[in-house]
This record gives sequence, C-alpha cells and structure tokens, in this order.
Amino acid sequence: MRISELSRRSGVPLPTIKYYLREGLLPPGRQTAPNQASYDEQHVRRLRLIRALVEVGRLGLADVRRVVQAAADEAVPIGRAIGIAHRALDTSTPDRAADSDMAQALSDVDDYLRNRRWQVAPDAPARRALAGALDALRQLGRPASVDVLDPYADIADRLAKFELRATPDGTSRSETIEFAVIGTVVFEAALVALRRLAQEHHSRRRFR
Amino acid sequence: MRISELSRRSGVPLPTIKYYLREGLLPPGRQTAPNQASYDEQHVRRLRLIRALVEVGRLGLADVRRVVQAAADEAVPIGRAIGIAHRALDTSTPDRAADSDMAQALSDVDDYLRNRRWQVAPDAPARRALAGALDALRQLGRPASVDVLDPYADIADRLAKFELRATPDGTSRSETIEFAVIGTVVFEAALVALRRLAQEHHSRRRFR
Repeated sequence: MRISELSRRSGVPLPTIKYYLREGLLPPGRQTAPNQASYDEQHVRRLRLIRALVEVGRLGLADVRRVVQAAADEAVPIGRAIGIAHRALDTSTPDRAADSDMAQALSDVDDYLRNRRWQVAPDAPARRALAGALDALRQLGRPASVDVLDPYADIADRLAKFELRATPDGTSRSETIEFAVIGTVVFEAALVALRRLAQEHHSRRRFR
Repeated sequence: MRISELSRRSGVPLPTIKYYLREGLLPPGRQTAPNQASYDEQHVRRLRLIRALVEVGRLGLADVRRVVQAAADEAVPIGRAIGIAHRALDTSTPDRAADSDMAQALSDVDDYLRNRRWQVAPDAPARRALAGALDALRQLGRPASVDVLDPYADIADRLAKFELRATPDGTSRSETIEFAVIGTVVFEAALVALRRLAQEHHSRRRFR
C-alpha cells in the first residue's frame, strides 16, 4: 500500500509516519519508484505498537525505540523482549535501595517469587515495585508477611494465563510481543480503573 | 503520648510532624502544659494515612489535605470520602473529551457499569480512565466490544469484596477510609507489579 493508505489504515498522520521513518522506528517500505515506496501489514502493526507505547504507555521516543528494536530483533527471545518492554514502561520507583527495610523487602520478594516458581529477570522493575509496595505496607503498620500478596498473585497468575491463551497459536513473533505490550499498557489501565470502580461501589453499599 | 513518641511510633520525623500540624493536616494534640501537648492513636493513624498518600500515592500537599479533610468530616459518607481519595489519586488522563471516539467509549462505559449495577459517582476519574483504555483498544484495532472487560471486571469485583471483608466490622470511620486508601495505593501497585511478573514468567515458559 501507499504511505497515504498506511496513514488511513493506522490512523497515524502522514507527517508523523515520515518522522518515524526518519527516526528508524518504522522500517522503510519497499522502493517501487524513485520517489515512492510500498508498505504492508507489518508496517500497520508496527505503527499500532508505537501508538500504544506513546499514547497509552506515555513512553518517550528513546524508550519506544528500545522496545521496537527488541520486538524486531529475532535473536531476542520473546520473554526477554516483553521484559524489555516492561522495563521501558516502568514509571514507578523513587530509589530506595540504600534503605535496609527496602533491602529486606527485596529479599522477601525474591524468596516469594522463588516459592511460586515464577521465573523473571533479576532486574525486572516490577520486582522492585513489588518490594516497594511491601515495604510501604510495613511502614504503614500493616501485616508484614509476604503472604498478604497471595490473593493478588493468584489473580495475576490467572490473568497472565488467560491473556496468553487469548494470543492465537501461530501468531508471529512481532504480533505476540505487540499483544503482550498492548495487554500490559491497556488492560493494566482497564484493570486498575475497574478495581477502583468496584471498590467505590462496594464501599458505598456497605457503608451507606 | 508526647510528640517525640508520636514521631517514633509513626516513623515520621519530628520537623515533618510540626509542619503537618502547622498546615492543619494533623489535628492539634491535647494541651497538657503551656509548651506541651499530648497525642493519641488517632494521630498515629492520621500520620500513616498522610505517609501512604505522599510516599506511595505521590500526592501533593493540596491533594493530601482534600483527602484528609474528607476522611475527618463525619458528614461525608464513607463511599463518597473514598471517591474523593480516588479523585486525588488519579494521575491519568490526557484530556480527550472533545474526541467523538472517546465520547462513544465513555457512553459505552456508562452502559457497562449500569449493566453490572455498579454505583459510582458520575465524575469518578476511573470512569474516564476505563473509557480511555477502551478507546485505545479500538484505535489499536483490537476487539471493540465492552465485553472484553468482563474477565477484568469479575476480578475487580472479587478483589473489592475480599478487601472489604478484610476490614474488620466495627472499624472506625477514619480507619475504614485509611484501609481503603492504603488498599488503593499499595495493593494496586502490588497487583500491577505481580501481573507484570506473571506475564513475564508465563511468556518465557510458552515461548522459550
């Protein structure tokens, strides 16, 4: 397809597409004439991935580039590419590593993940984010055991399995990563919103 | 207790406590001598609530004040006070109201909440956040029906009920609100982190 159709199909304005091409976020089309190139479904999908990262994930261009490169590089295993996307999407965590309470929470989280046999990269930012939440609970005088995480971990486990099943078999590598990234940014936003709505609803019912 | 013990019990440094007192975020203690006041459990709990809002929720002082005032004002129903906390904690949403796709998504979310019989304030920010996620899915060429939200809404519903049951009966009004706010900010962070960890783990397993 021509670049104008690519713009129509993806909903991304023409000047933005040209900018992404110049920045190398979008691979060049197949040259069909000195001043004309042809684009395909892969370009449509790539543009969608970039949009999800920019508009929903609020990533800057440098982070978008990192995710897109990992998604495009066949040598990077899919799980690792998804980890890279998570790292780029991480917006949390004031640095509290020096704090001995935080070090304790980090080590508790490591034990917890080991007990659940979850295999994640040692530098996964969600690991630190989870330790930060656990540390905050302790600072706030709430139950200190990692067991309080169980109901949430069970739910997270079921959700991740459900979402992976929703990715059709035989989906291409880049589509799989696109699914995972969109799942992370969009469904995470939806889940957080729904949880707050449910919390408001049920507390109104209980305390009216 | 003296202000020094209040500082020790709450983990909040003395100068910060004095600042909160001056700013009216913490109610004054009972005067026991011209230059001495006595503080109680209510002050410990209030300081924990402020800490949760500042350190985990990343709220500014003006927003902390709004939440704390709603928590303290007996005339505000609990469900409403929790709604006010949610509004203050809302960090999302670039404004897209003018967009006709977004207007459609908002109206779909309203229908969806009505079908589920969830009663939430019409100006709940999570409503907009959910519509934003739905709109993003549609822009990304993903299934457009609100039914895609069902598994997430079921989970949110179960979580909210579980968390409310975890609030002991006979808990005071301000404690209940404190529980809800801590639940929102801390367990939300934990849930999001666990979901990413589970996603990374299961995608590594499936695609190795």
